[in-house]
Amino acid sequence: MAFDLTLDPRVVQWRERIATFVADVVIPREQRVFEQGLTDGERRELQAAARAAGVWAPQVPRELGGGGFRLDEAAVLLEEAGTSLLGPLALNCSAPDEGNIHLLHLFATPAQRARYLVPLVNGDVRSCFAMTEPPPGAGSDPAALATTARRRDHRWLISGVKHLITGADGAAFAIVMARGGGGADLDQGATLFLVDTTAPGWRLDGHARTIDRTTVGGHCRIVLDDVEVGDDAVLGEPGEGFRHAQARLAPARLTHCMRWLGAARRAHGIALERAVGRQLFGSPLAGLGMAQQLIADNEIDLAAGRALLWQTAWQLATGARGTEESSRAKVFISEATARVVDRSVQLAGGMGTSEELVLGRIYADIRSFRIYDGSSETHRMSIARRAARRAAH
Amino acid sequence: MAFDLTLDPRVVQWRERIATFVADVVIPREQRVFEQGLTDGERRELQAAARAAGVWAPQVPRELGGGGFRLDEAAVLLEEAGTSLLGPLALNCSAPDEGNIHLLHLFATPAQRARYLVPLVNGDVRSCFAMTEPPPGAGSDPAALATTARRRDHRWLISGVKHLITGADGAAFAIVMARGGGGADLDQGATLFLVDTTAPGWRLDGHARTIDRTTVGGHCRIVLDDVEVGDDAVLGEPGEGFRHAQARLAPARLTHCMRWLGAARRAHGIALERAVGRQLFGSPLAGLGMAQQLIADNEIDLAAGRALLWQTAWQLATGARGTEESSRAKVFISEATARVVDRSVQLAGGMGTSEELVLGRIYADIRSFRIYDGSSETHRMSIARRAARRAAH
Amino acid sequence: MAFDLTLDPRVVQWRERIATFVADVVIPREQRVFEQGLTDGERRELQAAARAAGVWAPQVPRELGGGGFRLDEAAVLLEEAGTSLLGPLALNCSAPDEGNIHLLHLFATPAQRARYLVPLVNGDVRSCFAMTEPPPGAGSDPAALATTARRRDHRWLISGVKHLITGADGAAFAIVMARGGGGADLDQGATLFLVDTTAPGWRLDGHARTIDRTTVGGHCRIVLDDVEVGDDAVLGEPGEGFRHAQARLAPARLTHCMRWLGAARRAHGIALERAVGRQLFGSPLAGLGMAQQLIADNEIDLAAGRALLWQTAWQLATGARGTEESSRAKVFISEATARVVDRSVQLAGGMGTSEELVLGRIYADIRSFRIYDGSSETHRMSIARRAARRAAH
Amino acid sequence: MAFDLTLDPRVVQWRERIATFVADVVIPREQRVFEQGLTDGERRELQAAARAAGVWAPQVPRELGGGGFRLDEAAVLLEEAGTSLLGPLALNCSAPDEGNIHLLHLFATPAQRARYLVPLVNGDVRSCFAMTEPPPGAGSDPAALATTARRRDHRWLISGVKHLITGADGAAFAIVMARGGGGADLDQGATLFLVDTTAPGWRLDGHARTIDRTTVGGHCRIVLDDVEVGDDAVLGEPGEGFRHAQARLAPARLTHCMRWLGAARRAHGIALERAVGRQLFGSPLAGLGMAQQLIADNEIDLAAGRALLWQTAWQLATGARGTEESSRAKVFISEATARVVDRSVQLAGGMGTSEELVLGRIYADIRSFRIYDGSSETHRMSIARRAARRAAH
Repeated sequence: MAFDLTLDPRVVQWRERIATFVADVVIPREQRVFEQGLTDGERRELQAAARAAGVWAPQVPRELGGGGFRLDEAAVLLEEAGTSLLGPLALNCSAPDEGNIHLLHLFATPAQRARYLVPLVNGDVRSCFAMTEPPPGAGSDPAALATTARRRDHRWLISGVKHLITGADGAAFAIVMARGGGGADLDQGATLFLVDTTAPGWRLDGHARTIDRTTVGGHCRIVLDDVEVGDDAVLGEPGEGFRHAQARLAPARLTHCMRWLGAARRAHGIALERAVGRQLFGSPLAGLGMAQQLIADNEIDLAAGRALLWQTAWQLATGARGTEESSRAKVFISEATARVVDRSVQLAGGMGTSEELVLGRIYADIRSFRIYDGSSETHRMSIARRAARRAAH
Repeated sequence: MAFDLTLDPRVVQWRERIATFVADVVIPREQRVFEQGLTDGERRELQAAARAAGVWAPQVPRELGGGGFRLDEAAVLLEEAGTSLLGPLALNCSAPDEGNIHLLHLFATPAQRARYLVPLVNGDVRSCFAMTEPPPGAGSDPAALATTARRRDHRWLISGVKHLITGADGAAFAIVMARGGGGADLDQGATLFLVDTTAPGWRLDGHARTIDRTTVGGHCRIVLDDVEVGDDAVLGEPGEGFRHAQARLAPARLTHCMRWLGAARRAHGIALERAVGRQLFGSPLAGLGMAQQLIADNEIDLAAGRALLWQTAWQLATGARGTEESSRAKVFISEATARVVDRSVQLAGGMGTSEELVLGRIYADIRSFRIYDGSSETHRMSIARRAARRAAH
Repeated sequence: MAFDLTLDPRVVQWRERIATFVADVVIPREQRVFEQGLTDGERRELQAAARAAGVWAPQVPRELGGGGFRLDEAAVLLEEAGTSLLGPLALNCSAPDEGNIHLLHLFATPAQRARYLVPLVNGDVRSCFAMTEPPPGAGSDPAALATTARRRDHRWLISGVKHLITGADGAAFAIVMARGGGGADLDQGATLFLVDTTAPGWRLDGHARTIDRTTVGGHCRIVLDDVEVGDDAVLGEPGEGFRHAQARLAPARLTHCMRWLGAARRAHGIALERAVGRQLFGSPLAGLGMAQQLIADNEIDLAAGRALLWQTAWQLATGARGTEESSRAKVFISEATARVVDRSVQLAGGMGTSEELVLGRIYADIRSFRIYDGSSETHRMSIARRAARRAAH
Repeated sequence: MAFDLTLDPRVVQWRERIATFVADVVIPREQRVFEQGLTDGERRELQAAARAAGVWAPQVPRELGGGGFRLDEAAVLLEEAGTSLLGPLALNCSAPDEGNIHLLHLFATPAQRARYLVPLVNGDVRSCFAMTEPPPGAGSDPAALATTARRRDHRWLISGVKHLITGADGAAFAIVMARGGGGADLDQGATLFLVDTTAPGWRLDGHARTIDRTTVGGHCRIVLDDVEVGDDAVLGEPGEGFRHAQARLAPARLTHCMRWLGAARRAHGIALERAVGRQLFGSPLAGLGMAQQLIADNEIDLAAGRALLWQTAWQLATGARGTEESSRAKVFISEATARVVDRSVQLAGGMGTSEELVLGRIYADIRSFRIYDGSSETHRMSIARRAARRAAH
């Protein structure tokens, strides 16, 4: 037998439970959240409901209280969660917490696990990942990292400016990337630090007014002014920050793809349902050729994106480092889902850009997915370089 | 000599004045409006400033106090006004008032001109155009018009539901399309009515929560419940509503193209300036090949769109009915400007979807241009049918 | 464990053998064949070499002398064979013989197997599949089938015109679709007939001068003028021609995708190698950003196409009927491979359209893949209809 | 009045004459030429017919015997000529002779005019333009020019290899670009030379086997081995070759656009006529939505391309250098016409890639237009650089 793409029965069971939970619990709250935002109390309420529904944290190891699903299985479940923009948050598999849980699980000391990982997994707190900096700092080019961690009296002083830090407003702690920690003088390389947002010197300096609205905690500008931490705040090895962050990047790209694939499927479903029910020029809209083209292209993009995603998740789940594979998947799926959502808006016509139909919100929120986690251009450059290197041999 | 595309000196002069006005007066107010919206007082203030700057209402006949420019000249000036999302409003050349002024100028009686056209041209009031209805009513297919005007006691009773009526909130009056008014029994065809929004039976039933935000007066749902008007409220001939509306449609499509071309140029300019100033991987971002591709494709789309727009505006200005020509231009320019804005967002990176950089706002606001004023699909159907008819002969 | 996409060791072994065979035996003959065409003697020679190399007929059941690989395994091997336009012919897995073998294997009687299937599998003869007719006959719409099989004296008289019959020139026999054979009077439905091309009344009426050149036996117009056959010429059940043909269609679509995926990979490889070796503006061409975009997009399209193809082949191999799945895969892969080849031509520059670089030949030959085996439009219509039906429930 | 895009009556008259000539004289010969190529005798016959029809050399100054039309007028006429792939040759407005006539007219001495320009204008001889070299020589990057002109005994010895020299086989002379001629020692810059193809040392070293077929004289490899010429062979100033060649490049790009626009229009017309006449799924093909999309997109691309071309031609005709404008037009039109032809092939279905329907030939022949005369990538790089320079100020 060559391949086996059969879904495990437990995956099927969870998928159904998630679908029911999203339909019954999450979707009914969407409109209010779109209009007024989500309070932290409502977040906890939603998450409690998810726990009660048996759909809590599918991608988290079972010993930590999650579903314990492998990355390729998670592909099925996080897509389902993503069918509401609030679904991943409800299931505690949303960015940035989901990636931070993964990173903490890989590198945290027992003390760090108790202090940061456990409450994060349980939904008691939220977190953020503070790597990106305003130009000319670390963005598409991480080597430009400008935030520094200087050594003083066996402790670290972290200073710098971060921006577009998703979820920072209301987060209990951050994983901060800063220059230093490697080499004999500890001034080489980069290091990941666990920093409480209540630490002196940590300052939230405003939100970027981006057109997406459903990300809890916003995209914040953070100023770190000699934030002092001890060695127990170092996540993993000092000086190994870039390498450690890599362990987060490839799977985090894929979980983004999973969630947005769900959102794109939702958009397509909304538009399709409307097209089936609406009469235009004497026939159902869904029967008109140009509408059929929009519908079919959506079906094709979703199928191709899902096939590539499942394959890539399987590769990572079975040990591949997956840098190149996940780059390809990220570019394809971020662009394919954007196309799907754009076509769905078009198919829905005049109300296509409205929040009432949800489509407008998905359209606005998905735009930056082609930019964050490595822009399409950055990934393409990296893919082409690897291909050229292979061809040169 | 074959062609002459030389700009008239007066056009050049107005273009420069508009550019200065937008830069000095309009753009400084953008961020506040993005955050808080625009009050009617601010609108009047902006418009007073435009009048003072000698850039008032370029497309309006001189005898009414406007610039008196022909449609092909207006193409140059409305593009310039469109470089701020608030520019057209400031110059009183924004939708829907601009198209309503055109329609009133064509068909209004002297009394209607005094009561509706003059205050509208002067910016004393705003207006709306109430044609679109929720499905299964008049949308892509105007023939599905469901709002009715019934004759009673030599007066008209208008009833129906309109939706996505841009600018309705705060408008002083509406041009309403309703079924009836033609034929012996006055129950055939359709008629355009001038309806005060204070009329008994007119009710604003909420705003569509679409992702665009800079349209003053929103996109409203209107319920008309036996709104009673006299014959003096009929605009043009009773029963000729569809034909009269056609006179608005083709030029209104083009003025939309003009304004959005300006917005797309602005987006490109913002992204380009940023790309020139930003270092990435050791070179200016604007010097990287994939950034160059985004930049060049923007330049090409803007140039092709403008060439097609100028040609089409010239055709309409010199007497062509221009249904097919303006359909082609509308599809091409609505899609080309969307591409330009999308590329600009991409080029600007992490802040590309923010209001601070303006790009996020343009991105969200331009989306529905491929839908309203005839969706891309509706225009394509119409273009293909005409082409097929020609080929069949 | 969720998925398993591990390649079976035997698949890996065959893939390597095929790669070596194509590189050592097939590719060295390409240029001569491009210039002068392929004689039947050369075809037999190539096929003998394939048999000697242990790469004969991967998709054919082992009891018939082939590799016995399942469809999802064949996906790997037929892609490898497709890296030369002559490879599939050499391995006897090219269209239309490969699909005909599949069909005969499913439905042929023992006598038909001996007479038609065995020599076809062995490469002693070639065959063709005569379904398509010139408009207004059977094309995108099989229901328009105009060729008839009339019953006379317990025998069948087949009359009609077929066109674009690939491989007909030099074929020993054809599988002919004709109207009739079903219902009480045998004049309903359609029937598949095995017809010797030496039969009286069978006439090859010329070749379509299409721009592809490497298809042995051309794309022919066939006139059938009362070709008389007995009941032993019926393949499967009389009247069940459409249903039987379906059994050929879905897998045949996929094997086309496999072969063209190989051709597209070859094109990409040629262009990439050239881009790596060529200096332009003081850097290797492959290091310029716009070239990187072409390269990366090729890598992405190939990966996405392959993932979708493998998944779809697995679905069919494990019992799915796969009509919709194979439609989606066919549209995506025919368009993705066309994009890959087009970009490769572009990347190769001035010689990109030449046969010397092979790219020009692949470019010309691949064009019709978006048309035959169901055009992109036909498949999209079918995909959209199914999606709409699902949404309506 | 702002613009005037009215066609001059003489342009309209010539356009009609050309349309009639192409329909009556050129198109009837296409199929034979596609099958067997064009002899030089047939070329002269066709050209004599064009002269007799009063459509000879529209773009050539009247004093030389041509139509004397300005570049923006020629846009209309060369498009019409281009509706047959043989039309431009018949009218003596095809590449490379048309560009060479332009260049000779600008820079030739009276003696050179008599010897080269007059017979070329009259169609007594053909010519070629020998600039492109195999990598790593002059291609996208002219600075890499490797062919040299060395000074010896007051004469020049030209040595080097050129490739893809269109029309070289059968040409009477070439305009050759070679390094040298400038500076005090005459070894700087580059110089254009008029070289007879009968000169000792000039050798035609084979044809590139590209997929286009209708270019008379092929795309040849030329070896120059100490070809000796005198100072009277220098075209323009020695050392000014690059600058002189620029005078050919921008207008030659546009005339290519004009001719291919005609070919694309022809392709669209063929496909549309077929779509109107063919029934599919119970309706005319042209009435199906996806076919309408192909048709409408063709109409839009043709209109946008034509508008941009006319505007750009007017800019060059009225004195603009037009480097950037013609780059934008070249990229847009080469890609738009390629899309039009590809859609036309798709719309025509099974016969879409055939020579019988002409579409297959246009499809194969137009592909290299995105590569020669500056590839899309080279132009985009140049456009982006200029835009970035402007933005930097």
